[in-house]
Amino acid sequence: MTGTKLWSGRFTEETDARVEEFTASIHFDRRLYRYDIKGSIAHATMLARQGVITDDECSSIVSGLRAIQDEMEQGVFVFDSGQEDIHMAIEAALISRIGHAGEKLHTGRSRNDQIALDLRLYLRDEITGVIDCIGRLKQVLLRRAKEEVDTILPGYTHLQKAQPVRLSHYLLAYREMFDRDEERFRSCFERVNVMPLGSAALAGTSIPIDRAYVAELLGFPRLSANSMDAVSDRDGPAEFIFDAALTMTHLSRFCEDLILWSTDHFGFVEMADSFTTGSSIMPQKKNPDTAELVRGKTGRVYGDLMSLLTVLKGLPMTYNRDLQEDKEPLFDAADTLVSSLDVFEGLVETMAFRRDRMFEEAARGFATATDLAEYLVTQGIPFRSAHNIVGRLVGYCLEQEKDFSGLSLEEIRQFYSDADETVFELFSVQASPDRRSVPGGTAKSAVLQRIKEIEEADEH
Amino acid sequence: MTGTKLWSGRFTEETDARVEEFTASIHFDRRLYRYDIKGSIAHATMLARQGVITDDECSSIVSGLRAIQDEMEQGVFVFDSGQEDIHMAIEAALISRIGHAGEKLHTGRSRNDQIALDLRLYLRDEITGVIDCIGRLKQVLLRRAKEEVDTILPGYTHLQKAQPVRLSHYLLAYREMFDRDEERFRSCFERVNVMPLGSAALAGTSIPIDRAYVAELLGFPRLSANSMDAVSDRDGPAEFIFDAALTMTHLSRFCEDLILWSTDHFGFVEMADSFTTGSSIMPQKKNPDTAELVRGKTGRVYGDLMSLLTVLKGLPMTYNRDLQEDKEPLFDAADTLVSSLDVFEGLVETMAFRRDRMFEEAARGFATATDLAEYLVTQGIPFRSAHNIVGRLVGYCLEQEKDFSGLSLEEIRQFYSDADETVFELFSVQASPDRRSVPGGTAKSAVLQRIKEIEEADEH
Amino acid sequence: MTGTKLWSGRFTEETDARVEEFTASIHFDRRLYRYDIKGSIAHATMLARQGVITDDECSSIVSGLRAIQDEMEQGVFVFDSGQEDIHMAIEAALISRIGHAGEKLHTGRSRNDQIALDLRLYLRDEITGVIDCIGRLKQVLLRRAKEEVDTILPGYTHLQKAQPVRLSHYLLAYREMFDRDEERFRSCFERVNVMPLGSAALAGTSIPIDRAYVAELLGFPRLSANSMDAVSDRDGPAEFIFDAALTMTHLSRFCEDLILWSTDHFGFVEMADSFTTGSSIMPQKKNPDTAELVRGKTGRVYGDLMSLLTVLKGLPMTYNRDLQEDKEPLFDAADTLVSSLDVFEGLVETMAFRRDRMFEEAARGFATATDLAEYLVTQGIPFRSAHNIVGRLVGYCLEQEKDFSGLSLEEIRQFYSDADETVFELFSVQASPDRRSVPGGTAKSAVLQRIKEIEEADEH
Amino acid sequence: MTGTKLWSGRFTEETDARVEEFTASIHFDRRLYRYDIKGSIAHATMLARQGVITDDECSSIVSGLRAIQDEMEQGVFVFDSGQEDIHMAIEAALISRIGHAGEKLHTGRSRNDQIALDLRLYLRDEITGVIDCIGRLKQVLLRRAKEEVDTILPGYTHLQKAQPVRLSHYLLAYREMFDRDEERFRSCFERVNVMPLGSAALAGTSIPIDRAYVAELLGFPRLSANSMDAVSDRDGPAEFIFDAALTMTHLSRFCEDLILWSTDHFGFVEMADSFTTGSSIMPQKKNPDTAELVRGKTGRVYGDLMSLLTVLKGLPMTYNRDLQEDKEPLFDAADTLVSSLDVFEGLVETMAFRRDRMFEEAARGFATATDLAEYLVTQGIPFRSAHNIVGRLVGYCLEQEKDFSGLSLEEIRQFYSDADETVFELFSVQASPDRRSVPGGTAKSAVLQRIKEIEEADEH
Repeated sequence: MTGTKLWSGRFTEETDARVEEFTASIHFDRRLYRYDIKGSIAHATMLARQGVITDDECSSIVSGLRAIQDEMEQGVFVFDSGQEDIHMAIEAALISRIGHAGEKLHTGRSRNDQIALDLRLYLRDEITGVIDCIGRLKQVLLRRAKEEVDTILPGYTHLQKAQPVRLSHYLLAYREMFDRDEERFRSCFERVNVMPLGSAALAGTSIPIDRAYVAELLGFPRLSANSMDAVSDRDGPAEFIFDAALTMTHLSRFCEDLILWSTDHFGFVEMADSFTTGSSIMPQKKNPDTAELVRGKTGRVYGDLMSLLTVLKGLPMTYNRDLQEDKEPLFDAADTLVSSLDVFEGLVETMAFRRDRMFEEAARGFATATDLAEYLVTQGIPFRSAHNIVGRLVGYCLEQEKDFSGLSLEEIRQFYSDADETVFELFSVQASPDRRSVPGGTAKSAVLQRIKEIEEADEH
Repeated sequence: MTGTKLWSGRFTEETDARVEEFTASIHFDRRLYRYDIKGSIAHATMLARQGVITDDECSSIVSGLRAIQDEMEQGVFVFDSGQEDIHMAIEAALISRIGHAGEKLHTGRSRNDQIALDLRLYLRDEITGVIDCIGRLKQVLLRRAKEEVDTILPGYTHLQKAQPVRLSHYLLAYREMFDRDEERFRSCFERVNVMPLGSAALAGTSIPIDRAYVAELLGFPRLSANSMDAVSDRDGPAEFIFDAALTMTHLSRFCEDLILWSTDHFGFVEMADSFTTGSSIMPQKKNPDTAELVRGKTGRVYGDLMSLLTVLKGLPMTYNRDLQEDKEPLFDAADTLVSSLDVFEGLVETMAFRRDRMFEEAARGFATATDLAEYLVTQGIPFRSAHNIVGRLVGYCLEQEKDFSGLSLEEIRQFYSDADETVFELFSVQASPDRRSVPGGTAKSAVLQRIKEIEEADEH
Repeated sequence: MTGTKLWSGRFTEETDARVEEFTASIHFDRRLYRYDIKGSIAHATMLARQGVITDDECSSIVSGLRAIQDEMEQGVFVFDSGQEDIHMAIEAALISRIGHAGEKLHTGRSRNDQIALDLRLYLRDEITGVIDCIGRLKQVLLRRAKEEVDTILPGYTHLQKAQPVRLSHYLLAYREMFDRDEERFRSCFERVNVMPLGSAALAGTSIPIDRAYVAELLGFPRLSANSMDAVSDRDGPAEFIFDAALTMTHLSRFCEDLILWSTDHFGFVEMADSFTTGSSIMPQKKNPDTAELVRGKTGRVYGDLMSLLTVLKGLPMTYNRDLQEDKEPLFDAADTLVSSLDVFEGLVETMAFRRDRMFEEAARGFATATDLAEYLVTQGIPFRSAHNIVGRLVGYCLEQEKDFSGLSLEEIRQFYSDADETVFELFSVQASPDRRSVPGGTAKSAVLQRIKEIEEADEH
Repeated sequence: MTGTKLWSGRFTEETDARVEEFTASIHFDRRLYRYDIKGSIAHATMLARQGVITDDECSSIVSGLRAIQDEMEQGVFVFDSGQEDIHMAIEAALISRIGHAGEKLHTGRSRNDQIALDLRLYLRDEITGVIDCIGRLKQVLLRRAKEEVDTILPGYTHLQKAQPVRLSHYLLAYREMFDRDEERFRSCFERVNVMPLGSAALAGTSIPIDRAYVAELLGFPRLSANSMDAVSDRDGPAEFIFDAALTMTHLSRFCEDLILWSTDHFGFVEMADSFTTGSSIMPQKKNPDTAELVRGKTGRVYGDLMSLLTVLKGLPMTYNRDLQEDKEPLFDAADTLVSSLDVFEGLVETMAFRRDRMFEEAARGFATATDLAEYLVTQGIPFRSAHNIVGRLVGYCLEQEKDFSGLSLEEIRQFYSDADETVFELFSVQASPDRRSVPGGTAKSAVLQRIKEIEEADEH
């Protein structure tokens, strides 16, 4: 047999065509080529310094790899369909170009530690990119929050009007979530930033390599400490996908709100034409597709997470081919997250808030009921009794079909005999938020204080 | 604004480029083109019969669509990057080719019912294809089972040797699973085989269409009964993906066994060189990659299921753009299942069973302990006492480091004083399975009976 | 060692206390006691008929089991903490009560086929119960739909007003979903209704049992056909949980709508006080908790599904202890589904529709735009042009801040020069639905026709 | 209406009994009582310092709460079935005991921030407990690794023998995983360690509370910065469950190995009788149930993760009742993880390694093939050629049915003509690992170095 497979020494039959197609990963792992070549250059450089290959061989390898990279970047590289993955594709191309020296590149390493390295290089870049996207979205949120410090809207619990809040406070709530997301990605980066090469197949290698030097060349502060773990570990991808899933969760919540707010019924936002689309049949439609799709794509990232966790569950040590199924969910989660953050940032940036509608709706219903109850507490009524008094007053209003603003002092006194004119101030939607000046509260002072803190933190 | 979007009448801004890319589905829904065109031809044919369009317009539409299909099949159709999905791509191409008449095709329908139709046409084909693959695998299993009726191997529970069984019995156990899988797909087909066109956006249409005629043209036995449900229903894709997930589960279990069996330690099967691959570093390796990947890909289909369910959860009526996220998990699950079944069939077909190793291992350990216990029951000893007697006998053997075959009658009598020479027959691994002749048991008679039933059923 | 474990013959050490607690299933599988006893009575009856035990032994076993069942039903049975599962708890109790005869009950069976049987008996009951709940909910939906045939509300796509529809049509859309759910559960029942006992540990038994007689006693139409499959198969639980997950999905969508409809902004429904709850701090709140919790519990059932699938993935043949983890997700899914259906039925039954609000909102916006476009088609304008004309007209209205109803004929003629007075009829929200009289459409005639079909089907 | 609900002021109907049962959380959130009371005591203490309540009222509240806690700890507290959750149960009990003062406890807070606090207090404890368990398991692994530094076993990739490794190296690979798990839990702790009380329903409160003082009393270093975020944030539970899922993944892999190793075929470990169980029918069985169950329970934690993520997806701001579904998956994941770690530690501690079997199996097969290939590299043969030479030599051995040890120098020279006697040293399984002395490798020196590093790190 004259197999073209670089590993075909002991085999006597050609691989079945179905198997070749089924087991190939080249159609998705090719996107790792930059990392694969970067790792190979570092490996070759080290092999030369260690005297395992000559400097000439090294130069030949490095320039061969760079030429391959150039072709790949220009999209002119011709992939040999017989090569099952990006590692083999590059190695085979190198050998066919530079001959003998190319056959020495794989000395002291295995595809097992090579893919472990590629994934870590990929993840470092991807995490950096995600943090960047989150940062831009956070900037937009801050800017819009600063513009809307004086905008009042109804705050909801259970989607029922609860208490008037500032729009800026609402927007900054999402900023908190994205802060935590960013933090999680930063933690993930630290754990990913470890150099696995030199673990070879599973046990390390007898070739006199210098792992620390490779790490230095590639900018890794730490070496993996156990070769068996290093080739079978997929914690990084799993953690990344989870972090992505949680970020998508936050986006999905924001989207849900914006979809509601852009209904005719709420009418709180007007999305830009450029961020919405129309209907093939109904000429009047302007649909919040961008927000809907971001919400929908959350499911996709959850699926990616479940997919990878299932692959890993119950796998014996060390590398098993099941692990090839790590890449597609990882790439999909990363791509989905980045594009969702990006498009969502544009959506938030371009949408118009309808302040009048927000205020009008904040004033309808009984959103200041808690203000009244808390006032009664200051008058010496225990909170539970105060709650009950106001609850009954609301019941009375519903029966009479009036809002608080339609009540007379006499009517109020049926429920709280000591009431005087000051109670009417409590019903003001404008004034209500400012009573909640506790740190983290929705009062103007509290919101401005938080904005100040954020700006100070951003400066560092 | 001179938007190229067919729905752009009320819009005053161009769609943002990021949004265009983010919301486009053309890169994955293009594979539905055959179904989309098939549905459009039926729709146009009906519109002509109803007098909504003229026969000439209909001819023009039909031949225009056929020309587009031809180009697509030959891979020469040029997709207009401005068209967001396959429906718009085809409609726009049609209009640009045949003009006015093309503008009439979308009369009385919406993309909402159009995609509902496309998905059902796709699912009908895909389910048929899956059932075909399962059928082929079942045939291979039957054939190999018939060859191995006399092969004895250890049966396991908890991966501990339990009782000797026939290899044919083992293989037919998997056939049972695939029988159920096939049945589930058939149920799914019935539920999918319903014609949604005519539901339009969500409410039906005022155009005098004839839904029953469209159904007849497309071979659907039933019409969807509620337009709002019809455009928002994704039960078919969800059920299909679940059925695929369960079939993959069965495959994953089979793979696990085969991976174990092809270890040096078990040594029960020798996979064909053509269904295994080698190592980039370790020259001696021959890895069961095919089986590992099928097992791994199970996670992928679980992910697809979770993804779609999450998309659907809590969606308000009726169509929401989130639903666009139904297609990729569906396609991925279908493709993964079909290729896994296909490659697995080849694996099972080509692997060699090592009957000697199986027998040898069945004979080691205490796999006939239950035979002895059940024999004691026939001697009037209550089962619990019999179990205890044999358990203690096993304990004795372990202590003495011998197998049942190494025991003398005297030793046995220390545990069961009435023992005579006949007990030694009970230890025969060859004879043991035939004692289990109950229907569904592992006796030769029971297995042959089951094979007969299967062959009779297959004939119908 | 004087172990109390019935299987302790070969063991020389007591089970570690942590292991005992960790591996015990008695705290959740005890709820299967009725099924376990029912199966044991059938097994004993068969053993007696086969002459494996005497009639006296059988009577003694049966009355012993009945006494145990009575105690369990009255909650007075004292569970022996040393017994790890319900099978052992009952068998040990039986032996301690009736002695010798009790030791014979486990003849010719194993816990492996015993739990397989218990689960199938449980599932048959549970599926029947679920179908019952779905049936009641479907009845409520039909009744309410009949009451609301003349109620018009806005239909939505993308949560944007799309076209006016009948409330009855909307309610019946959900009935369609529950119809499919019921069908799926019926398919599942057929697949579950198979008798596994006699498979013993994995290979069948050498005891001369009569499986067909046991099936007859327990009302099973079919025997499992392969003992190895029978003890390791968990398709029934998996399929049941998926069917439950999809039903919950439908409920979650309905809940989402009702939560939106009960906001101040939509105001379409008023939930009964008895189906809502209040706030600990805000006295005015009346929250749609029931609907929110049903929606939330959907996640729980998805989790149950993922949990069981993960357990099954890659398990080697046949029984493995992992399978003990099948019961809790199954029970949880069943309990969650039944209670959700039950409480949701009450919610739908008791909520009040605010017909005036629905009509008022249907009339706002441009929900009849498609009527106008489809009218233009009847005037000979190709649909795409008609769509564009109406789209621009809507754009004009938005600019002028008026609804269709505020347009003059002159204004309309700027967009469609042939317009006459009849166009104003097209804007009528009352008349619009009746134009969609296609089967499955929202016209009164179509809805009444569907109601008739449903009632006829229900009679059978 | 004389409702017993503390929020019943505005309600005119009693809650439906089904709803009461369906919405109740008291059966699972009661386990938070310690945290709820701790938070209430801090809240009351602060209210008194702020002059909102008197010192006498505070004393009365604090001693009332302590009495309730005592009763709960002793299991004598009688839960009022009308109270839906632990907050209401405790508040109602307090009011019934101390009257008026009790009605003041809920001043300036809501159940929304109360449960947010309870969950964070719970998580802090739970994470601490988990880290403790991981620490103990890591100690056992280290101890056993130190005992087995000289034990050689076959290392596997694809479950095929790959290269000989040290058992200590294998055990420390798992320690690496648990190190990362621990680190993730520590990161999670930092993010959870934030004080939410004072956020009230969603907007903060107008009562003059002192959040910083409460944080100080409860040992929180930070205050939540946005009240809307604080009451709707469930990142902590989600992150915890993910961290648990990944830890379970690692355990599941270890379990898989141990289950394989305790088969008759591998025979590498003998689990203690006290950590295994028997069969109800097969007297000889000793099953690795503990390991199987840990592996199985992994699915359960994945389910918990999917469950919570699904609950959170697309939830509008701020608190929605769906969030009540956060607790059961959280509790279940925590309990499952803690008990799994605990029992697994015992399993690892008590199992016996069968060193002879490991060595014997390492020597069979061609596990030293890579040693030979790497040797050839040192002789100036490019790695790819060396790989091919050895691959063909293995093919020859398979054909001749011999191991490397059975080869003559002549035979070897057919493949590598320059071979001399030194090649035989390369086949030594004993010597092979020590050639892999690279950091993280399996050489004795590398393993001892790693042990030293671990011990030094543990000291800090």
